[in-house]
Parts: sequence; structure tokens; C-alpha cells
Amino acid sequence: MDMTFDIAATLVAQLQKPTLAFLIGGMMLAALGSKLEVPAPVYKFIVLVLLLKVGLGAGISVREADLVALAVPAIAAALVGVVIVLLGSRTLARTKGVTPMDGMATTGLFGAVSASTLAAGMVMLDAEGIAYEGFIGALYPFMDIAALVTAILLARMCAARAMPATPAGGGTAVMAMGGGENANLVREILTDTLKSPAISALVLGLALGLLGRPEQVYASFYEPLFRGLLSIMMLIMGMEAWLRLGEMRKVAHAYVAYGIAAPFVHGALGFGAGMIAHHLTGFSGGGVVLLAVMAASSSDISGPPTLRAALPEANPGAYVGTSTGIGTPVAILSIPVWIALADWLIGFQ
Amino acid sequence: MDMTFDIAATLVAQLQKPTLAFLIGGMMLAALGSKLEVPAPVYKFIVLVLLLKVGLGAGISVREADLVALAVPAIAAALVGVVIVLLGSRTLARTKGVTPMDGMATTGLFGAVSASTLAAGMVMLDAEGIAYEGFIGALYPFMDIAALVTAILLARMCAARAMPATPAGGGTAVMAMGGGENANLVREILTDTLKSPAISALVLGLALGLLGRPEQVYASFYEPLFRGLLSIMMLIMGMEAWLRLGEMRKVAHAYVAYGIAAPFVHGALGFGAGMIAHHLTGFSGGGVVLLAVMAASSSDISGPPTLRAALPEANPGAYVGTSTGIGTPVAILSIPVWIALADWLIGFQ
Amino acid sequence: MDMTFDIAATLVAQLQKPTLAFLIGGMMLAALGSKLEVPAPVYKFIVLVLLLKVGLGAGISVREADLVALAVPAIAAALVGVVIVLLGSRTLARTKGVTPMDGMATTGLFGAVSASTLAAGMVMLDAEGIAYEGFIGALYPFMDIAALVTAILLARMCAARAMPATPAGGGTAVMAMGGGENANLVREILTDTLKSPAISALVLGLALGLLGRPEQVYASFYEPLFRGLLSIMMLIMGMEAWLRLGEMRKVAHAYVAYGIAAPFVHGALGFGAGMIAHHLTGFSGGGVVLLAVMAASSSDISGPPTLRAALPEANPGAYVGTSTGIGTPVAILSIPVWIALADWLIGFQ
Repeated sequence: MDMTFDIAATLVAQLQKPTLAFLIGGMMLAALGSKLEVPAPVYKFIVLVLLLKVGLGAGISVREADLVALAVPAIAAALVGVVIVLLGSRTLARTKGVTPMDGMATTGLFGAVSASTLAAGMVMLDAEGIAYEGFIGALYPFMDIAALVTAILLARMCAARAMPATPAGGGTAVMAMGGGENANLVREILTDTLKSPAISALVLGLALGLLGRPEQVYASFYEPLFRGLLSIMMLIMGMEAWLRLGEMRKVAHAYVAYGIAAPFVHGALGFGAGMIAHHLTGFSGGGVVLLAVMAASSSDISGPPTLRAALPEANPGAYVGTSTGIGTPVAILSIPVWIALADWLIGFQ
Repeated sequence: MDMTFDIAATLVAQLQKPTLAFLIGGMMLAALGSKLEVPAPVYKFIVLVLLLKVGLGAGISVREADLVALAVPAIAAALVGVVIVLLGSRTLARTKGVTPMDGMATTGLFGAVSASTLAAGMVMLDAEGIAYEGFIGALYPFMDIAALVTAILLARMCAARAMPATPAGGGTAVMAMGGGENANLVREILTDTLKSPAISALVLGLALGLLGRPEQVYASFYEPLFRGLLSIMMLIMGMEAWLRLGEMRKVAHAYVAYGIAAPFVHGALGFGAGMIAHHLTGFSGGGVVLLAVMAASSSDISGPPTLRAALPEANPGAYVGTSTGIGTPVAILSIPVWIALADWLIGFQ
Repeated sequence: MDMTFDIAATLVAQLQKPTLAFLIGGMMLAALGSKLEVPAPVYKFIVLVLLLKVGLGAGISVREADLVALAVPAIAAALVGVVIVLLGSRTLARTKGVTPMDGMATTGLFGAVSASTLAAGMVMLDAEGIAYEGFIGALYPFMDIAALVTAILLARMCAARAMPATPAGGGTAVMAMGGGENANLVREILTDTLKSPAISALVLGLALGLLGRPEQVYASFYEPLFRGLLSIMMLIMGMEAWLRLGEMRKVAHAYVAYGIAAPFVHGALGFGAGMIAHHLTGFSGGGVVLLAVMAASSSDISGPPTLRAALPEANPGAYVGTSTGIGTPVAILSIPVWIALADWLIGFQ
């Protein structure tokens, strides 16, 4: 009862904070038909600065981090990514009316991570004065790549099995080919993910933070701009979310149910994995919250182009609509739940 | 004599300050044929940040403002917008060689408000350490919408009257139709104005400032960037002003005379309305200056697209040229006049 | 021995600093095939802010500078620009397989100055706490224009001489025409250079700093953004440098040798001229380093469009490739050499 009230109170207070206020503001603008727009080149630059900042911050922290402390959450993050996709392949992808290809692409996006949702979670924790490990940004690619690779592999294998009788080859031949292709595919997907602008910026920031000494430019430029640029990005995401919501009306209701339920189920998975790491290695309460946020989030920047390239048969209207239109706002709205839950189970003082 | 000298001294000192210095710099660049340009996407982003900042600041202030104190200047602002357009409909729009449509569009722009000229006035007052009400930004839409709606209504009514004999209807029929159309038109124009990027950003900032708690991101991002981005916007406006000046040579001299005289006449109207509010509710001297600046200014961001959509028959070369090429630089150059006048009549200490 | 060690130690430490770390990071990204990109409009804006900042800072300093102290380095800078091009016209432009037109265009770019390399040098000196004259930015156009004008004049004269027998005129006629054309050409090239976006922004900043009072907006906007925007520009230049490196494989090896050797030879020329100014007028050690950096640098922003317009026959693949692909990274890598050399010869305390 007390907990329910606490969560509700936290949620209401969060709505007034810039991150959610700008997201809701963006949705209102789109709902009212505003012609406001953030030009695409500026949007790309904002994403670049945000991801460089997250990477730089992570790299600087990892440079001084306890590598043993990093190892357990990194393994946990990768496992959560795989489990989310396996879960989706048994639920959404098997729902009537949902093509396996579309279902796997959608669950892949939900397993992947949204850097901006993660950033929103960090800003909320910062505002509350809740500490978390600096290497959290370094966990992102583990979950992201694990989920995308698993989803694309399962979708491709599904498609291979679905092809009933190729000119001169039975099931065994397809399987054998599948085996050879899988190895190539895994390599290709890994490469494509690393080459995507989002992951490139993040990994570059990480490398520069690890090997360079960017502390001064980080403190004088990347840090101060981060909060403000994120407020503008939330505005954009709010407007997009509203527009995609309309697009989703044409798609099966299964996507809507998945888009609403998945952030909570996946967030709980991430929270559980974080709790195990908490007991094993003293992973902080703030870190548990952010692992839950990563798991709850669905990719809106790095994922869609990867999936569009790897699974051209899947309908972007389904996976991008479900993720950006439903998954991302629900995931952002779920952040206070993980904060309240961690406060209740571990306690921040 | 003393006053004339004071105004002259203030004017000279203002020329060295960033706002006017960058405007003049931009004009010099254009005059010398420089190929310098600020790309359109960056320009849109600068406008977005500037208007969000003005809106956020206004919203935060209104949240703690005396609503009675706001009411009187808001009514004054709306009335000034209407009176400016009525004045223009009896002078510019009736000048020989000026089509009524072009004349009304021009006077509508001169009644509407330039957020950047207003911002320039605020920066000049800030630099002088002169206080003004924080809700000033909230007065903008009152004057803006009142002027645009009045101008478009009068222009449309003028066009209806000009149609001599419609197939089967006399003056009464046109009047009746006009009545029905006017109600629709007012609604459409109000909607279009609210949907325009400039007004959207301003109203969004206002709403977020009123209902959210954006104080932190306002202080760490929007405030520090404002002055610098405005200097770049002044550069752009200076270059545009010079280019439009050439375009105006082809247009009737009436526009030139109107463009030079109107900022002073309208500014005096706004100043007078502000003085009444000063005596009624203790409206500050800085506020009186800014009401004069709003009235003196002509819209360069939100107005033109509204007019282009609502009055497609009007020639943008005439109204945009007169406003951006003559009205805006004259209005900015008039700011020190209002400051000196308020200092002389009310006194800043 | 000690000196060699010092230079090596300085070089290694510089590699970890943001300027070089981001440049190398950009090269790595391009080498790995990353799809990261900074949109062109944002890039133009970054260049505008960087050059306005350099100009404003220079203007503010010159306003209080000892004009006699400025005169000697300014003459030295212009002379270095001319000597670099004369040197190139006797070496690269006479190499077998290199067309005189391509050779002169390339040596012109190497005589011109890269504002970003100069900025990188300033940031490195700032980080070391080494002082330099504030008017250094004002030396840029002297060397830049002298080099470009000399190169274009020599290339045009070369082309005129190469035309064996014009319809009805011998060598004297061509010479006479050349004389008349040269005067026009010098005027045109001076005008084109001043009109180019880069030089416009720099000269505008210089004028605003000299005649206006932009100290406040300089300190609150241009200064804080400078270091961060430069880090992003270094990223872009690193990516470009890698891509141009591939392009150069198709071009004569002479360009590669010139691109590697020229920054060191030209830097030494600039360093020598700076040392003379040091002994004549007490020009600072930091100033000597920056004169060497200017001489070592090759133009990547202002030069190419000027050359493309003035010498359309020259192949941009040769001159832009050699300059951006080889000259600029080598020049940036050479900065620590000039710092170490100045420390050894003059000493910073």
C-alpha cells in the first residue's frame, strides 16, 4: 500500500521533470498538429553529442573501474538481451496474424537498448542524487548486440525452415547451408552494428575516454550540453511517438499489447539480473535501476537501420511503430517504477 | 536638448553592443558580397532554442506572477495589435499604387511581433541592469494573433467588397457570406498561428515553464546559449535585411516611407499603452520599453508563413521586404529611443 | 639526445589530448568503415562558430595591442606565405608527371593556413599554460592571402607562357596581356578570398572584436563552445583524412613526398621568421610556435573553393588530397615538434 503510494508519488513528480515534461510536450504538439520540426541534420548532431558524451563518461569511468566488478553486470546484460528475444519468439512471434519475420524484428528491437531512454534514466537518478557505476554506459553494447544478433539469427533460421522444398535440397541441406550462413551472418551483423552511427559514436567515446585524456572537454562541453540537448531530443521523440501511434492503428492489436507489457516484463528481468549482480558483487542500487531501464527500453536509434538491412522482409511499420510509438514512451514512464522498487528493496540514503 | 543628447549617446553606445554590432556586421557582409551563410537547418534550430527559452522563462515567471498584474498589459498588447492594423488600413493600404491586399498584409506583419527584436530588447535591458516583468514573453501571442487576425479579416472583407457583381448576389449576399466565412476564417487563422513552428515553440515553452519544473535545464542550457545564438541570428537577419533592401527598390516608395515611420509610430502607441498600464498597475519601466519594442517590431518568423497561407494573393516581396528589409532594422535601431524615453519619463535607478 | 627524448615524450603526451585523440579516433572510424557522419549544415555552423571565435578573440586583443609589435610578425607572415609558394614552384611544380597547374594549386594550399590546425595549436599551448600574443589570429589572413595570390598568379603566368603561339601575338603580347590580366587577377583573387565563408567569418569576428564590445558574448558562448566544437571538427577531419588517403594512391608519389616533407620545411621557415621577430620585437615563444604551425599547416576550409574557382584546370583530387589527406595530419602531428623546439631555444617557464 505504502509502496504503491510511493511509486505513484514518484511517478507524478517525474512527470514535471524536464525529461518527461518535454516528451509529453512533444506528444501534445503532434496531437495539436503543430508544424514545429527539428531538422534532420540537427537531430543527427544531437544524437552524436549525446552518444559521445555517454561513451566518454563510460570510458573515463572504466579506466579507473574494477574490471571484475564490470564483468558480472556485462554478462548479465548480454544474457538479459538473449532471454528477451527468446521470450518474444515464443509469444509475439507465434501470435496469430503476426508474421514470424515481423515478430522477431519487433522483439529484437525490444531486446536492444535505447541510448536516450538510458540517458533519461541517468538524468532522473542524477536529479535524485542516486549514485550508479560510471561504467553503466559500457554495458549498453553487450545487451544491444546480443539481442539483435539473436533476433536476426532466429528470424533467418525461421525463414529457412519455412521454405518448404528448394529446387534440389531437403531439410538437411537447408540446415547445413543455414549453419554456414549463420556464421557469416553473425559476423556481418556484428560488423553492421559496430559500423552504425549510434554504436560508432558510443564505442568511439568509450575508446577516447579509455585511451585518451578528454576530461577537460568532457567537463566544459559534453556534460553541460547533455541535459539541454536531451530535452530537445525528448521533444522530437514525443512528436514521433504520437505520429507512430496513429500508424499502429492499422497493425494487429498484438503489437499494442506487446508494446505495453514488454517494457515491464523486460524491465523486471533486467531488475532481477541486476539484483543477482548486487548480491554477487555489490552492484549499486542505481546500477540495478539502469539495468532494468536498459532491458525495458527498445532501440530507437541504432536498431532500426540494422534490422532494415538484415531483415528487409520485415515491415518497419510494425517494429518501428511498436518500439518508438509504444515501447519507448512506456519504458520512459516505467523508469520511476524501477527507482521506487530499488528504493524499497535496497534503499537509497 | 539634454534628452536629445542622452538618446544620441545611448544610441551610439548600443551600436557597439553585440546585438546591433552583429546586425550591422551581417549587413556589411551582404553589402561586400560575402558567401558566408548559416545553413537553414541550423537557423531553424537556433529559432527553436531562442523561442523555447523565451517561452520557458515566461512560463516560469507567470507561475509565480500576479495574474491581475498580467491581465492589464495583456489587454493593452492585444489592443495595440488591433489599432496598428486599423491605422495601416487607413494609411498604407489606401496609398495610390499599393494594392489593398499587399497593404493589409504589410500592416499585419507590422502589427505582429518579432520574437528576435523582442529578445534584442531584453538583452539590451539586461545589459543595462534594467528590470522588467518576467511575464513579458507571455504578452507576445496576444499582440501577434490580434494583429494577424485583424489584418487577414480586413483584407478578406476588402476582397469580397471589391468583387463587383457575383453571378446572382448583391452587396447583402456578400456581407452575409462574409459573416459566415469570417467566423471560419478567425478559427482557421487562430489554429494556423498556433500550429506555426514559432508560436508552437513559444507556447510549448510557456506550458512547460508553467506546468513543469524546467528550472535546472533552463539555467544550464537555454539561458547560457541564448545570448550567443542570438548574436548569430542577428548576423543572419543583417544579411537578409541588406538583400531585401535591394528587392525593395522595385516596389513603391510608399513601402519605404511606411517601413521607416511605422516602427516609431507603433512603438509610441505601445509606449503609451505601457504608460497607462504603468499608472494603473505599476507595470515596470522595463516592461513599458518592451511593450513599445513589441509594437515597433514587425514579424519576421511567425508572420510571413501565416500570411502566405491566408492571403496567397498578396506579394511577399512587398510585405516581407518592407518588414525584414526596413521595419526590423529600424525597430532594432529604435530600441535605445524607448529606453532613453522611459529613463526620462519614469527613471531607472 | 635529451632534446630528442623531450620531443618524443611531448609527442606521446599530445596523442592522448583531445585534439589529436579525436583526429586519430576519426581516422580509426573511417578505417573501420563506420557510417558515422556529421551532417554538412552542422559542419558549416561549427566552422562559423570556430572562425568567429578566433576572429573575435584576435580583434579584442588587437584593440589593446601594440600596433608596432603586430607589424613585424604580420610582414613576416606574408613573406613566409610567398616564400613557401616560390619554393613549391621550384620543387613540386617541376617534378616529372606533375602538371604545373596541379603543382601550383597544391603548393598554394600548403602556403595558405588551416584555421583548425592553428586552433589545434592554440588549444595545445593553452593546455600547457604557454602564453602567446592575442593578435595571432590576425596574422592568418596575411599569410593566407599572400600564398594564394602568389600561387594563382604563378599558375596563370605559367599557363600563359605554355600557350606557344596565339593567333596573332608573340611572347611580348602575352606578357603585356599578362600584365593587364595580373592586376585584374590580383584584385579578383583578393576579393574572392575576402568573400569566402571562412575568411568572411574571420574578418567579421576581427572587425566586431575591434570596433564592437563583444566581450560578454565571447566569454559566455564562443569561448566555452570552442574546445568542444573543435573536438567534433577534429573527428570529421580525421575521417576525411583517411578517405583522402585512399584517393591519393592513384596520384603521383611526388604528392605523397611533398605532403610529408612540406609541413616540416614550411614550419621551419615560419619558425625561423618567428625567431627573427622574437629577437627584433620580443615576439613570444608561443607566438613563434604558432607562426610555425601556420606555415606548416595547409588550408582545408578557405583555400580549396578559392583555388577551384581561380584555377578550374587543376585537379582537386591532387591538391585537396595532398593537403587534407597528408599535409593536415602531418602538420597537426608536427605541432609538438615546434613546442619542444621553442622550449629548447627560448624556454617557457
